[in-house]
Amino acid sequence: MKIYLAGPDVFLPDAVAIGRRKVEICARHGLTGLYPLDNSVDLFAPNASLQIFRGNEAMMTEADAIIANLTPFRGPGADAGTVYELGFMAGRGKICFGYANDPTLYVDRVRSRTNVTSQDGRRIDAEGLTVEDFGHTDNLMMIHALELYGAPLVLPREKPADPWHDLTAFEACVRLAADRAAR
Amino acid sequence: MKIYLAGPDVFLPDAVAIGRRKVEICARHGLTGLYPLDNSVDLFAPNASLQIFRGNEAMMTEADAIIANLTPFRGPGADAGTVYELGFMAGRGKICFGYANDPTLYVDRVRSRTNVTSQDGRRIDAEGLTVEDFGHTDNLMMIHALELYGAPLVLPREKPADPWHDLTAFEACVRLAADRAAR
Repeated sequence: MKIYLAGPDVFLPDAVAIGRRKVEICARHGLTGLYPLDNSVDLFAPNASLQIFRGNEAMMTEADAIIANLTPFRGPGADAGTVYELGFMAGRGKICFGYANDPTLYVDRVRSRTNVTSQDGRRIDAEGLTVEDFGHTDNLMMIHALELYGAPLVLPREKPADPWHDLTAFEACVRLAADRAAR
Repeated sequence: MKIYLAGPDVFLPDAVAIGRRKVEICARHGLTGLYPLDNSVDLFAPNASLQIFRGNEAMMTEADAIIANLTPFRGPGADAGTVYELGFMAGRGKICFGYANDPTLYVDRVRSRTNVTSQDGRRIDAEGLTVEDFGHTDNLMMIHALELYGAPLVLPREKPADPWHDLTAFEACVRLAADRAAR
């Protein structure tokens, strides 16, 4: 089984090293991890960004499954690029796994950044926008896509000391994928 | 042409009214707008969130195209649910349109929220994570998906006074969809 390794990991200072660790974990479970940074892209080319897009899309097309790192990124929810990719893979009928290295509920993540109040039975943020409050850690589209097309979002019991480098929840996803591949 | 109307509009206090306006604009251009809140969901049911997911997915499956409202939502980038849906529709091979009522570049949106510095040729945020800097307003996956599968992201020249209710950029997307439908 080939697995597309999606996540904001590509934005880490040690993005290449973390990708290598993820690919190794996949290999240890008999799976092939496809990591976006393994595409060759000329970052100084005028169309570098399109090259990255095309490389990622080709990898997703090649993959049987995705493991999406949905750890909150620059806001209360997951990285947009990763979320796009999860949607794309769900749309293509691929197997979807995901984890987030922060078990905090979405409503509490928003609350830690802005004032959340109640109005007419809705929870609203400081801008007056409804805060989704179904007991999930992130937007319901991702939560249910994972449930229905792979396995429920994997969460640690507590936020790890280093959420960007702790791969325990990632490895749990790899195990789920290996079980699925063995069926 | 049936168009799925994706966006954090569903979180507005006047979510139903804005959906009605969007559907009317579609009708004026000979198109059928499908708005998530037009699905019937029992919000007090224990599986309300799954009902919403299934309703949205059924609407997307019925639609020929998507118009995604990618206006920044609770962070420097677009709403995760909307981004998931854009990915899903791209994965399904549907026609993809989108707009964002804020023409600010992504790197500048991040800069307005946190310190952005340069290191080894990368721009990094206060956490040390790379800030994508390809001259786009949001993550490259959405930007290029729109370019390749519909039309480039529609942006106003300036952020409108009321980004959540100004439908000028939305109507520009509807016009693009109508042109496409007429071909």
